[in-house]
Amino acid sequence: MPPIDLPVVLLSHRGPASFQRTPSGVTVKRSAGGLVTALMGLAEHLDDAVWVCAAATKADAVVATEHEGHSVEIAFDPEPQIVDADSDDDVGPTISVRYVEVDAERHEAFYTQIANPLLWFVQHGLYGLSTAPTFTAETRRAYDEGYVSVNEQFADAVAEEVEARGGRALVLLQDYHFYLVGELVRRRCPEAVISHFVHIPWPSPDEWRVLPPAMREPLLRGLLGCDVVAFHTRRFARNFLACARELLDLPVDMEAGIVEVDGRRVAARHYPVSVDVDALEKLAVSEEVARHRVALTAQHLGQDADGHDKALIIRVDRTDPSKNIVRGFQAFDLALTQHPELVGRVTFLASLMPSRTDVPEYGDYLAAVGGIVAEVNARHGTGGWQPIDMRLQEDLAFAVAAYQVADVLVVNSVNDGMNLVAKEAVLANVRDGVLLLSENAGAHEELGDFALTVHPFDIQQQAEAIVEALGMDVEVRRGMLAGAAQAVRDYDVERWLRRQVEDLWLSRRR
Amino acid sequence: MPPIDLPVVLLSHRGPASFQRTPSGVTVKRSAGGLVTALMGLAEHLDDAVWVCAAATKADAVVATEHEGHSVEIAFDPEPQIVDADSDDDVGPTISVRYVEVDAERHEAFYTQIANPLLWFVQHGLYGLSTAPTFTAETRRAYDEGYVSVNEQFADAVAEEVEARGGRALVLLQDYHFYLVGELVRRRCPEAVISHFVHIPWPSPDEWRVLPPAMREPLLRGLLGCDVVAFHTRRFARNFLACARELLDLPVDMEAGIVEVDGRRVAARHYPVSVDVDALEKLAVSEEVARHRVALTAQHLGQDADGHDKALIIRVDRTDPSKNIVRGFQAFDLALTQHPELVGRVTFLASLMPSRTDVPEYGDYLAAVGGIVAEVNARHGTGGWQPIDMRLQEDLAFAVAAYQVADVLVVNSVNDGMNLVAKEAVLANVRDGVLLLSENAGAHEELGDFALTVHPFDIQQQAEAIVEALGMDVEVRRGMLAGAAQAVRDYDVERWLRRQVEDLWLSRRR
Repeated sequence: MPPIDLPVVLLSHRGPASFQRTPSGVTVKRSAGGLVTALMGLAEHLDDAVWVCAAATKADAVVATEHEGHSVEIAFDPEPQIVDADSDDDVGPTISVRYVEVDAERHEAFYTQIANPLLWFVQHGLYGLSTAPTFTAETRRAYDEGYVSVNEQFADAVAEEVEARGGRALVLLQDYHFYLVGELVRRRCPEAVISHFVHIPWPSPDEWRVLPPAMREPLLRGLLGCDVVAFHTRRFARNFLACARELLDLPVDMEAGIVEVDGRRVAARHYPVSVDVDALEKLAVSEEVARHRVALTAQHLGQDADGHDKALIIRVDRTDPSKNIVRGFQAFDLALTQHPELVGRVTFLASLMPSRTDVPEYGDYLAAVGGIVAEVNARHGTGGWQPIDMRLQEDLAFAVAAYQVADVLVVNSVNDGMNLVAKEAVLANVRDGVLLLSENAGAHEELGDFALTVHPFDIQQQAEAIVEALGMDVEVRRGMLAGAAQAVRDYDVERWLRRQVEDLWLSRRR
Repeated sequence: MPPIDLPVVLLSHRGPASFQRTPSGVTVKRSAGGLVTALMGLAEHLDDAVWVCAAATKADAVVATEHEGHSVEIAFDPEPQIVDADSDDDVGPTISVRYVEVDAERHEAFYTQIANPLLWFVQHGLYGLSTAPTFTAETRRAYDEGYVSVNEQFADAVAEEVEARGGRALVLLQDYHFYLVGELVRRRCPEAVISHFVHIPWPSPDEWRVLPPAMREPLLRGLLGCDVVAFHTRRFARNFLACARELLDLPVDMEAGIVEVDGRRVAARHYPVSVDVDALEKLAVSEEVARHRVALTAQHLGQDADGHDKALIIRVDRTDPSKNIVRGFQAFDLALTQHPELVGRVTFLASLMPSRTDVPEYGDYLAAVGGIVAEVNARHGTGGWQPIDMRLQEDLAFAVAAYQVADVLVVNSVNDGMNLVAKEAVLANVRDGVLLLSENAGAHEELGDFALTVHPFDIQQQAEAIVEALGMDVEVRRGMLAGAAQAVRDYDVERWLRRQVEDLWLSRRR
């Protein structure tokens, strides 16, 4: 890695740690997710890095106020704690975190009206356009007073951090919450090198036409204020280039991945995100996971009354319509109907985390999931056996135990930026499990060669893939699993971030 | 026009005329639509043309059998009639029509399972992907035994006609029913010059991913068997090129509009279809139209009790979700709420033709239309006045009368290949009416400069456009209308067809 002598300013909605006020004082908790880990790994190589994020709790806001809006220095090892930046104590790597407090009403408009579900639904192709979405004066207000205004506030915070570092920095903006920030930061800090990483799918131009021009054009212009716009896959990067050409009529070099705008060249690149391999492997050998594994094995594996080996299909998801849970169960239903020999022998275990239940579409979707589970269990269940074992929970240790003992892992997303469940599962599995992977999951570009590809809308084909996976030769299964796990190991989350920073550093303007 | 010495073979699902058995014998009726007119105009310049189509009635099938599968010579002026091809009688221009009888069960799968609604819904972006569509073994059967098999049957009929002409002909294939025919005809008739015209929207690659690869790839390959694939707009043609690149990984020259496939160069072109100007102008001066106009004027125009001029908004559509009727009424609802001075003074007249009511989504949509009409009329209606006057009917004379007296014409389609209502209306209007035109209607590329552009999903913006149109300066309105009418006159349906044939003739391989 080259010595990077530029400071790094990172922006994401959720920060690396969050504070809670308890009777015994303020405690600080590390957030889940690979980005913290990746940045911790990178931090050792960086002279100066600051992470701008939203104050997620009241205690975050209090900490922000106590530090007069400046950043807070946090050490994460062994336990997260605030440290004194001027102290000479050796506390290991630290991250500076700047918490931005957003007015509650503006945040609600920004987050629960525009970013979720509007941008989420558009980017995952979830609107049937007959009657939804509908843009009203209220949408416009939520966009102007929520999304635009919150983006301006975060752009100011990022620009201040850049200016405090003499105006030169690598700026790493994250995700669909902040599409307008790039252009705003560029105006104030023309010497900054700015990238924006989009973690969810970037669809084709026509799908963006669902947004009125007064929304879609500023979003695109905002991203084009960056030097690099980055995605998980080549396909999303090419869709972004197509949007610049079709929606803004800008010259695009599709092969080189370049848009020309206002005399500048903006690159569209792709860096597939990954998981924290070390952390997952540590968890995999924990007692908690072992307990779940023993329980799952006793309940769902072994042999049936006739002496046949039982088998386990699993999925682990949020209850988001983009995850395609209903069609997955419909496919299993077809498999049981068309292959009665599977009845009583193959169970579908689904660990599902209820998500965004305040959004009506999510409530409806959860109900549809419940409906199909009842239907399939009523249709095929026998005295002592239910075909689908659905757990509505969030439990990473349980998920890892399920990954370990699965014969088949179903990832059949309608659309998915990456899908880290697929990557976690192939690392953790110890039963020569087969991955069924949607062609529309970002992970398909890396793992498609080591999986059975499924088409998210074709439940007959998904049913056939389930049956094929269950009957596959063990050597073939083992080879596919090993290939997938190696692909994940070769490109972990630290490398994902390091490559971006290196590319940016090398491409900085002199 | 250059002298075209190649025969022309045309294929469309619906033919130019259809037979009916009545007690007094067999009668023949000319089909509605511009393609017949255009071909009649062209026929005078062609030595030899044959039109292949489906037998739509039992009598069509009988005629086909009587002619042993060969074509029937039909004269259209003054009344449609079969003529003896060998006769020397001067009957004016004739068209040879070859009726192809399709087995009812295969036709049902081809037409009501695959072409409508599946291809229609995909190409108009009407699926919300959370739960629909779902592909099953039945879909696969309908595709293989319906769509594929019917395409093969028609390809055979077309190829026979080409072979009967020595293997050299201009072949003009029409629309989404026959995507596979081009490649099949090319195999049998390598010297034919083949074009395929797609009359509905061609969406971006990601929207085609809704179809499984085993369907979308053969459809694309089928079209790429042609020399030219043609659309109504530049946008659709570019989407097609993007599909060849993203879904089949073929080299594409986006600027030249060329795909390279199997050593051949396939052109994607656009020719906006139009209306039969003469026929419309003839109908416009008819007594029937005059009667409707008098009635509409008496009912909806003139002055209200306070002496204010009344005004009329109209729309004319099939009750198809792609037409966006519900959101149009929601926008009108907003306009009445936000501008109470319009209440009692401005009526929305909607002439709607119930369509495909055997398809569940269409039934649901018609119910939603009825629901919003009742809601708006209940909310804003006064003693003697209802804000929305909805007529469920198909009546072209009524529609033309409505075109004539409209102050505002609403075309707010979700997606639309062309939308000929917009073109008819600007030709017929005599009241300086203003066209509100969706950015997603094909007609927008030609008429956008002479209309108020609306965004199909933004009902607040549609409401504002309605109010703006009603308050617009008469000189501005008149100028816009004249510009739109001139654009339509300059490029009528005969010219649409003639340009395609000329381009094909000039590009024929030597």
